[in-house]
Amino acid sequence: MHQVEICFSPDLIQHHELEGKIVVVVDIFRATSTMVAALANGVKRILPFADLESCRVMQDQGYRIAGERNGHTAPGFELGNSPVAFLNDAYAGIQLAMTTTNGTQAIEKSKGAAEILIGAFPNLQATVAYIQAQQKDVLIHCAGWKGRFNLEDSLYAGALVKSLESSHSAVEDGALAMKSLFEREGHRLKEYLSQASHAKRLQNHGIEKDIEFCLTYDLYDLVVKVDQNGFLVSI
Amino acid sequence: MHQVEICFSPDLIQHHELEGKIVVVVDIFRATSTMVAALANGVKRILPFADLESCRVMQDQGYRIAGERNGHTAPGFELGNSPVAFLNDAYAGIQLAMTTTNGTQAIEKSKGAAEILIGAFPNLQATVAYIQAQQKDVLIHCAGWKGRFNLEDSLYAGALVKSLESSHSAVEDGALAMKSLFEREGHRLKEYLSQASHAKRLQNHGIEKDIEFCLTYDLYDLVVKVDQNGFLVSI
Repeated sequence: MHQVEICFSPDLIQHHELEGKIVVVVDIFRATSTMVAALANGVKRILPFADLESCRVMQDQGYRIAGERNGHTAPGFELGNSPVAFLNDAYAGIQLAMTTTNGTQAIEKSKGAAEILIGAFPNLQATVAYIQAQQKDVLIHCAGWKGRFNLEDSLYAGALVKSLESSHSAVEDGALAMKSLFEREGHRLKEYLSQASHAKRLQNHGIEKDIEFCLTYDLYDLVVKVDQNGFLVSI
Repeated sequence: MHQVEICFSPDLIQHHELEGKIVVVVDIFRATSTMVAALANGVKRILPFADLESCRVMQDQGYRIAGERNGHTAPGFELGNSPVAFLNDAYAGIQLAMTTTNGTQAIEKSKGAAEILIGAFPNLQATVAYIQAQQKDVLIHCAGWKGRFNLEDSLYAGALVKSLESSHSAVEDGALAMKSLFEREGHRLKEYLSQASHAKRLQNHGIEKDIEFCLTYDLYDLVVKVDQNGFLVSI
């Protein structure tokens, strides 16, 4: 039996072994949900950046650019961090350069893993099936909010631990705790998360449709991974 | 209504505001449980140290010394980190210098708070009553295990959040999550925690009596705080 564990913040990743593992990066509100939405709706590939400036200059190389900080579209960027902007193939065929407050930093800090996947509720079961076809331990890397624990990433982690039950044992404390939390609260995800700080923060931005999308299970039979050149692609 | 929040690792404390808050430091297995046991059983005061060497030299100043690393008594130390060693007033009247793998580091990193308390299950309700007599926000600082999330500290945090319900709202994500986890698992604390990594680690050391003690509610009507000179004292 393989193992699954959770890292609750990129600032704790140094305490987790990456080598040989599949790392699933999670930033439910909204980076990884947006990445999944974009690739499921025809975006060719996504190049993630930790900083704004490196991302912005990609425009000169024919990329469309998406930049978000603190929940808002960063100045000078065409796109922010809204998954619904990509629906109905609105950006099909493009290449996207993308930077977000938390999510793209977590991808950067996952380097060294055997494989890096991008996780979100809309492709949960596809991700589970892919993982179960490999023979590797799993580390779920929650992007959190500015280094802190957050509820939506942690609950996704719990959902993934629960879904991997038949192939990956949850003996690590974080995995145990979040599996239990998901068992209690997973049936009322939206109601439960509406109490969370980040959901409240986003509600103030008037993006209820994004939240609705981010908390919808299994819209796509699509796995998103970081390829050998650092691009996010669907497989 | 005041607020309560949780920091799951000393390595995340820089993301939490300390100023003006009561910080409750928690290291259930076993540092803070041992501190509470010692002071409840007549130890006069405890001086915590983050490093072994500074602690060891306190022997020359008339202190008894307790040192633990990785679950074992550190070489050259009289005492380790066992709460049951202090029961029945075995060390009544002494002054203790103490260093542990995680707990004493968390105390060190809590400096800057309005007040630092030491929390454990054996004095949970006493701590709750003390906090509710103050008018301050609360930050629960889990010592974790070598920088990582751990289950027993987090469950204590959930128990404290739950007990503070009437005076402190849990809107912060960590507090919300652990309150929910405690509501689900709190009635079977020992059984649930027996799955946890640290409990397993300790079971291998043959200290079942310590674990039993650490998971017993409300043995003492005693509050432990860090005084202005850095000593842990009962109030």
